Amino acid sequence: MSSQTQRHPLDDIFHPRSVAIIGASANETRGSGGWVARLLDFGFSGQIYPINPRATEIAGLKAYPNVREIPGPVDYAIFAVPASLVPPIMEDCAVKRVKAVHIFTAGFSETGSERGEALQTDIERIAREANIRVIGPNCMGVYYPAGGLTFSPGFPKEPGSVAFVAQTGAGSSRLVGLAGSRGLRFSKVISYGNAIDLDAPDFLDYLATDEETKFIACYIEGVKDGRYLLESVRKCVRAKPVVILKAGLTEGGSGAAASHTAALSGSAAVWDAFFKQTGTIAVESLEEIIDMAITFLNFSRPQGRRVGIVGRGGGLGVIATDVCEKAGLRVPPYTADTRGQLEKLIPEAGASVRNPVETALGLRAAASFYEEGLKIVCGDPGIDFILTHVGVDVYGGYGSAMHDQLLEAAETLIRLSKTLTKPLAVVFYAGGRLETVAAVMEAQQRCLEGGLAVYSTIEAAAKAISRFLRYHEFIERGMS
Amino acid sequence: MSSQTQRHPLDDIFHPRSVAIIGASANETRGSGGWVARLLDFGFSGQIYPINPRATEIAGLKAYPNVREIPGPVDYAIFAVPASLVPPIMEDCAVKRVKAVHIFTAGFSETGSERGEALQTDIERIAREANIRVIGPNCMGVYYPAGGLTFSPGFPKEPGSVAFVAQTGAGSSRLVGLAGSRGLRFSKVISYGNAIDLDAPDFLDYLATDEETKFIACYIEGVKDGRYLLESVRKCVRAKPVVILKAGLTEGGSGAAASHTAALSGSAAVWDAFFKQTGTIAVESLEEIIDMAITFLNFSRPQGRRVGIVGRGGGLGVIATDVCEKAGLRVPPYTADTRGQLEKLIPEAGASVRNPVETALGLRAAASFYEEGLKIVCGDPGIDFILTHVGVDVYGGYGSAMHDQLLEAAETLIRLSKTLTKPLAVVFYAGGRLETVAAVMEAQQRCLEGGLAVYSTIEAAAKAISRFLRYHEFIERGMS
Repeated sequence: MSSQTQRHPLDDIFHPRSVAIIGASANETRGSGGWVARLLDFGFSGQIYPINPRATEIAGLKAYPNVREIPGPVDYAIFAVPASLVPPIMEDCAVKRVKAVHIFTAGFSETGSERGEALQTDIERIAREANIRVIGPNCMGVYYPAGGLTFSPGFPKEPGSVAFVAQTGAGSSRLVGLAGSRGLRFSKVISYGNAIDLDAPDFLDYLATDEETKFIACYIEGVKDGRYLLESVRKCVRAKPVVILKAGLTEGGSGAAASHTAALSGSAAVWDAFFKQTGTIAVESLEEIIDMAITFLNFSRPQGRRVGIVGRGGGLGVIATDVCEKAGLRVPPYTADTRGQLEKLIPEAGASVRNPVETALGLRAAASFYEEGLKIVCGDPGIDFILTHVGVDVYGGYGSAMHDQLLEAAETLIRLSKTLTKPLAVVFYAGGRLETVAAVMEAQQRCLEGGLAVYSTIEAAAKAISRFLRYHEFIERGMS
Repeated sequence: MSSQTQRHPLDDIFHPRSVAIIGASANETRGSGGWVARLLDFGFSGQIYPINPRATEIAGLKAYPNVREIPGPVDYAIFAVPASLVPPIMEDCAVKRVKAVHIFTAGFSETGSERGEALQTDIERIAREANIRVIGPNCMGVYYPAGGLTFSPGFPKEPGSVAFVAQTGAGSSRLVGLAGSRGLRFSKVISYGNAIDLDAPDFLDYLATDEETKFIACYIEGVKDGRYLLESVRKCVRAKPVVILKAGLTEGGSGAAASHTAALSGSAAVWDAFFKQTGTIAVESLEEIIDMAITFLNFSRPQGRRVGIVGRGGGLGVIATDVCEKAGLRVPPYTADTRGQLEKLIPEAGASVRNPVETALGLRAAASFYEEGLKIVCGDPGIDFILTHVGVDVYGGYGSAMHDQLLEAAETLIRLSKTLTKPLAVVFYAGGRLETVAAVMEAQQRCLEGGLAVYSTIEAAAKAISRFLRYHEFIERGMS
């Protein structure tokens, strides 16, 4: 944490020494999942002040009728009261010299109503005059596991290195859940809704130099200050990759965004130019954000776009090849020398060795093929990296044998990836059986812990690696 | 089954009165999963003749040293012997007047070797001279649950109405598995590999008038007779929808296809013209085949492309809108009247009613919203159909309560879909937790049984419905 004199305005949000919960429920207890319980259960180490005029104690903490009565200073306040109560309580916060607030409450300009607009204008004025920084309104606020802050009791407590800045609360929850099941953890997640004060550029500016963050993803509906966004994204991209899911770029989507966070979406052409100019990676779904994070955290940069594919199934190999080439990768045939070596390794008639090369049938046979086969493919001078697809459904076998063999195959791939001179990406494909889905989730997490880039489909892997290469090409052009 | 005099050549394959298994393993038993056991365990009702010179009995059936010694007639033979043994045994089949064979064996022209080419030429000559129809070589053959035929012991025994014709064996297995987990069942699946005799057009010609088949999907790497394909596809499209996954359309993919089934892929432009000219639906993955099948089997034709979206999460609604519009659908705002009615139903501040409309939080609240909300959206004159997305991850709740509430929500949607005057499509989104994945799989199957079109992502639903509308527009133009 920075010392008090050099404190960044956002440190009052990420490292508050005290938090007031305005509108804490009177019957909240530890484990109840309310705003007070979230901080207590997440191990927030600062002061917590529940505010409720009808309670004297909440979840074992002394409750106050309003912020003005709190004895010590208040760095940060979370608003969970009806919209009409927000302006008068903001006035209290001004008197109390609260540094920053998160307004969870919705019902402002996103409603399109005059009343909502007027309430929002009031808050903006009070905040500006009292120099209170605001997250929201109409948002979930901050998840910062290292600092004991969360907006969901179910989120992981371990911190990671992925930051997510988003105008969507439900989308943020979905991303944390999905990413968690793939083994990813977060440095900071900020759901900032209508963005009447703090906007994407403010968070990006902070994250650019945040040592806890190695990868930044954003969900943006609109920004107020385009030039500031350009500057802050440029500052980030020089230091770490930035991925943006820009929502509201279609006619209907733009209208929906207006009604969600009152955002002005901007035109697709403008955003397209922005992405190209800044080296930002544009994605279209939350799943693509996760695939990009995994690629940046666990995949080394290959020399080029030529991929050697290894997996079971002739037709599935043809589909995999088409998918890779459509994503901008190249799947050249292996050299005659490589093919000769692969043929000796695969006694099976009809198995292709051209690229893709087919492994033998069965997970155990596949794993034993990897020992020599990946080395041979890696040695091919026409190949820059390897993509192995492990189709648990086509390898057959069920129950504990399948589970154990899949985990063994994962360990083999983790071990080999450390000895290969070219990067290795892995796709575990589960198919439709719940038990293979369960085993694949476990294998994916194990691979990610083991430092391996792992994906759920070949489409996802090919798209992510192609974008990853484009980012590096952009950075290189900038450097030269 | 047709009477013997009017027998279609393919009836010897789909309705053989007797099957010889050439190369049956001597120690095969029921349940062992071998070719003999597959037929026995699947309830094939005709004669089964295991052929193995070193056995007198296999799985309780009398074994013969070669096909010529079989006492009765043989309609169909399955070859599971090394490639070099196939030509001499084909000569035996010619003597025995076997009507059709499936050559499972690989190692022919797909290897690119002179020896493989020569062996394949031999088989082609023998088959032509003796008028033996051939599936393969280098393929899995036939899965026809109603007739007791299968190439995998794990496939469902219940028949359905989806046919799949494919040059890929592993891909066919994957499709049956994935489709099965979504609740789909098959009329006939044919994996036909190198296609030295019977090719995609032969199977399509048969399926066009096959009453057991309502939807046809193909995986094609190449065809020998383009004109015949055009004719047979036209015959099908007049009667039922045809979906084609054309593999090998990229440079690398075309090379991979040559090495998989020795197919000549053809150019992307030619295939594109073919799809447009015939009204065939082009897809890019096995998953898209399944989504098309579900749409054609369970979704009624809407009047147009204007969709009313219902689901939780403002940002997720914006993403959903973008996804739908990018897929060629339209998401217009609801009328003022509709919005007014929806506002009364949703007391929550900040919830959008513009389109998408946001349901309240929680699965139970969502289900109770559907009762009135779907009727209101359905009544909007600017909307042609409804898409409801149920994000189990954002609704929160876990364990048996989540499971039961999800199933209740599914039952509510099934019931309401029968009363609505416009078509309803549903997306169940599981997120990353295994227990939600399990519950969603169950809810999807229940919806499919209940006649509801159900998908795993909004992307999948939007793409499939857009293609479905394009098919109907094509048919209509042809009729007018």
